[in-house]
Amino acid sequence: MRATLHQLEQTIKARRTADPSTSYVAKLTARGRAKIAQKLGEEAVESVIAAMQDDREGLTGEAADLLFHLLVLLADIDLPLDAVLNELDRREGVSGLVEKASRPKD
Amino acid sequence: MRATLHQLEQTIKARRTADPSTSYVAKLTARGRAKIAQKLGEEAVESVIAAMQDDREGLTGEAADLLFHLLVLLADIDLPLDAVLNELDRREGVSGLVEKASRPKD
Amino acid sequence: MRATLHQLEQTIKARRTADPSTSYVAKLTARGRAKIAQKLGEEAVESVIAAMQDDREGLTGEAADLLFHLLVLLADIDLPLDAVLNELDRREGVSGLVEKASRPKD
Amino acid sequence: MRATLHQLEQTIKARRTADPSTSYVAKLTARGRAKIAQKLGEEAVESVIAAMQDDREGLTGEAADLLFHLLVLLADIDLPLDAVLNELDRREGVSGLVEKASRPKD
Repeated sequence: MRATLHQLEQTIKARRTADPSTSYVAKLTARGRAKIAQKLGEEAVESVIAAMQDDREGLTGEAADLLFHLLVLLADIDLPLDAVLNELDRREGVSGLVEKASRPKD
Repeated sequence: MRATLHQLEQTIKARRTADPSTSYVAKLTARGRAKIAQKLGEEAVESVIAAMQDDREGLTGEAADLLFHLLVLLADIDLPLDAVLNELDRREGVSGLVEKASRPKD
Repeated sequence: MRATLHQLEQTIKARRTADPSTSYVAKLTARGRAKIAQKLGEEAVESVIAAMQDDREGLTGEAADLLFHLLVLLADIDLPLDAVLNELDRREGVSGLVEKASRPKD
Repeated sequence: MRATLHQLEQTIKARRTADPSTSYVAKLTARGRAKIAQKLGEEAVESVIAAMQDDREGLTGEAADLLFHLLVLLADIDLPLDAVLNELDRREGVSGLVEKASRPKD
């Protein structure tokens, strides 16, 4: 229950229109959707490799990069992080019901 | 400031040792690190494609899948989500200082 | 100097319009560009993982899958394999010239 | 039936032990298996994006990059391109038999 991702989401939104010469988010956003999506894909590949190398420190950095670029991509398509978290909550709800239903009756 | 990801992290930890015939997390975990990493990579590819199609509803689902499998991977390498969020906080701190330093003095 | 990839390119072209109930190529093609691209991305992820596991047999199969789906994607965008090979030849030509130029004069 | 990929395979093998300051293959090889695999993954992501943008010229370059880095990866794990092409031939043989078998008898 910490604010990191939601704060980062706000920071990214604010920086999208900043000066590309001083803001990475503004620079990447100016390069367009395809470039942002490419970065997300690349960070996922690097996360996969760090995990296969059993590199916990490496994965810490790559997972942070992955989350960061996911938020940049969500901002670019104007999709709030909360919509994604709602979807996760919804699935857990369904999944919980399924688990209950599949339990043998007492 | 909501608990979705941290609750999901706990749920995933608890399910890792559940019955693979009723739990997706247990089943995937039993297939090993490579399979979990593969799923993360696949969900990233699907997120990239949904973004390129400008499919907000599709990206909602794919981003949820991506976050879910990232948490399964972090659990498998025994890396807490908070370590990744700490890294994001640390970078924002550094980045904030950089932005301050690059501001013209009044 | 073998014909495998060019023959496969022709086979794929012929199968695109086959019956999706008996042809994988026809079925995948019918699902659309995004699905073909997704498969290419997935096979690349699996190739990365096989390589990280030092799994030569696994990489043989994944690289075959990768080449196959690359040919399906090229066919879908109507780009001949030869155009890609021409680009590789052109680069090697340039690269050869660069290597020559960088050699110390006798 | 052209020699491009097999010639490139030989060139890559020869360059692996070249001077990393003048050869890209030598430089990438020196950085290790994980870096080569990462490049393969990245070029696949870029191929996916070019395909989704319906960018035939872009895909020509990205597919060339993908094939090039696949050959560098195969060389690093000491797997001949012919082993991968043999696998594709074998599958087509099986697939051809399957198609024959599924044809209604005259």
